[in-house]
Amino acid sequence: MASIYLDHNATTPLHPDVVEAMLPYLTTHFGNPSSGHEVGLRARAAVEAAREQVASLLGCSSEEVVFTSGGTESNNLALRGLTATHAGAMHVLTSAVEHPAIEMPCRQLERQNVRVTRVAVDSFGRVDPGAVVQALERDTVLVTVMLANNETGTLMGVREIAHEARARGVIVHTDAAQAVGKVPTRVADLGVDMLSIAGHKLYAPKGVGALYLRKGIKISPLLFGAGHERGMRPGTENVASIVGLGAACALAERDGARQADRQRGLRDKLWELLKEKIPGLSLNGHPSERLPNTLNVSFPGVKGSEVLARAQDVAASTGSACHAGSETPSTILKAMGISDAVALGAVRLSLGRETSEDDIVRAAASLVHAYDAAAKA
Amino acid sequence: MASIYLDHNATTPLHPDVVEAMLPYLTTHFGNPSSGHEVGLRARAAVEAAREQVASLLGCSSEEVVFTSGGTESNNLALRGLTATHAGAMHVLTSAVEHPAIEMPCRQLERQNVRVTRVAVDSFGRVDPGAVVQALERDTVLVTVMLANNETGTLMGVREIAHEARARGVIVHTDAAQAVGKVPTRVADLGVDMLSIAGHKLYAPKGVGALYLRKGIKISPLLFGAGHERGMRPGTENVASIVGLGAACALAERDGARQADRQRGLRDKLWELLKEKIPGLSLNGHPSERLPNTLNVSFPGVKGSEVLARAQDVAASTGSACHAGSETPSTILKAMGISDAVALGAVRLSLGRETSEDDIVRAAASLVHAYDAAAKA
Repeated sequence: MASIYLDHNATTPLHPDVVEAMLPYLTTHFGNPSSGHEVGLRARAAVEAAREQVASLLGCSSEEVVFTSGGTESNNLALRGLTATHAGAMHVLTSAVEHPAIEMPCRQLERQNVRVTRVAVDSFGRVDPGAVVQALERDTVLVTVMLANNETGTLMGVREIAHEARARGVIVHTDAAQAVGKVPTRVADLGVDMLSIAGHKLYAPKGVGALYLRKGIKISPLLFGAGHERGMRPGTENVASIVGLGAACALAERDGARQADRQRGLRDKLWELLKEKIPGLSLNGHPSERLPNTLNVSFPGVKGSEVLARAQDVAASTGSACHAGSETPSTILKAMGISDAVALGAVRLSLGRETSEDDIVRAAASLVHAYDAAAKA
Repeated sequence: MASIYLDHNATTPLHPDVVEAMLPYLTTHFGNPSSGHEVGLRARAAVEAAREQVASLLGCSSEEVVFTSGGTESNNLALRGLTATHAGAMHVLTSAVEHPAIEMPCRQLERQNVRVTRVAVDSFGRVDPGAVVQALERDTVLVTVMLANNETGTLMGVREIAHEARARGVIVHTDAAQAVGKVPTRVADLGVDMLSIAGHKLYAPKGVGALYLRKGIKISPLLFGAGHERGMRPGTENVASIVGLGAACALAERDGARQADRQRGLRDKLWELLKEKIPGLSLNGHPSERLPNTLNVSFPGVKGSEVLARAQDVAASTGSACHAGSETPSTILKAMGISDAVALGAVRLSLGRETSEDDIVRAAASLVHAYDAAAKA
């Protein structure tokens, strides 16, 4: 029995258009883009066409797109690459609810004596742009705040934050791994200097990503080698996956807005169906300023993991990280002031392009049934 | 008209078995290996099975295999990860003919006040293991010497070097990007502590690689994030490409030796055919201690690029890097004491699994014809 996949924030299936675009580069067009012969030139052209597709979605110049191995590398390149160009005392400003691919590079910067401030979030998981401004210091070199939270889907006021920070001469980065393809991410509208993309969150393969790097922003590379990606990221280009990322961006540009509306409708229906049958079910995250595909709910009086264990036909995740059987409440939800008990009841349901209305009705029934069983156990 | 691809040292086509192994993970089995549900567990199992395949080819434990985004990252992780665990004055020993993915990290280490010695090579492009021993210093923390040179195919005496260096307590790394799948690379035989693999040099896709890291060797990660790859390499695993790398290693283990014999025969035939018609043609690299697929020759009195430009049905590369139309002689060939004129005459012909005897006969005829035309021009 096929399970209903509601874990698109963990990873998405590749879109058929993406697979179709990639296949020739896994078979016939296998060349190295650095080779001067026709096989190589064909690969080079494909990489550059994909770069245009990514740039088009972001509304930037293709020269501002650096391909990487994924969101984690893009974030590391932005944070550590930028700070490496500064010497002496410096300060970085971020939020209390970032993904480990931001939080862990921040901790590494702290080990290198960079001061890091993590601005708190409100009960919806949002950073107050005013608080960011207040936390800026004389030697703040970078503000990095995610565009959308991976667990709750809450959208941050990156535009306002960037406006204020850049007015003060501070460079702004956003981890848009969860946002790209789901909400508008044109860099001129956001006003950011750097933006991270993870391919596998938007129907492209794992192992590829990109960093938007505004023209004129100087960063140091993380890897050293031959001069690929204008010296910013050496290593033979991951041609097929880059082509896949380009196709995924083209797809998002073509019908991302329509998909967002469709998924928002289904997501809200799922919330209604669950709420109707489960009194006390609570929503984690902002009621409206949220990714259209994400529904994070806390089941009352039970653990989210217990509900999911009983809803075998629903593939989703809890808001908490499981380590060797022991469960700890999500640090994201805790940062929002949610109690441990409620945080442990959380389940993240994230929809995608292939999610149907029937999926939602079946998933709701299964989750309600699982909840009833868990509550009785 | 299909060209004859003799540029396998630049990149290889994916083997059909590799593509077949990958496809399910680009379609049905798209899960995130960190997800606890079945879709995720399936992906996790695939990554671990691939790790076993890589380990089997190298003759190591699967726990000693770290997946990366490619050879460049593997090399950076080895060199910079190892040196980052030491403080104060230190010394690194390498060869004068390394790939930029070793040479450039070495230059970065030099900027961080690590001393680097580049041991010279002989006219065949080989490092004298005795010279390595002599160059060891009291604070040498790492010796890194490639297993096979990318331009000439010359095999280094890594086994002897490792034996001597490790007897003195120095850690040994080898960049085996060109060697894996072509010659035996069992780590116990080589005696190395770290070994880099690049997927796209052995019929797996671009954008994936691995680092063999001997149990007990401590290195710092290059990237920070969630705890993937035992904390050594965060970021959602590149599942499909990792599966492809595993399949390629299994293939190499199955018939790498037979392929080596076959390609060596064809390679030597190509050399004979060219030599017969082109007096003064010279071989660059070691006559016997060389990758079985690689033939680097210098055409007398003409530039290699001129020969290749006229041999339109042969896809190969010169030994020299072309930058904006200006050509500079290969630093590898220069390090071997080869004159600029002869170095500029170089062409690297690298065979592969799909190279046939007919390809060789046709390529030889085409190159001879092109040479004659170039010599007359």
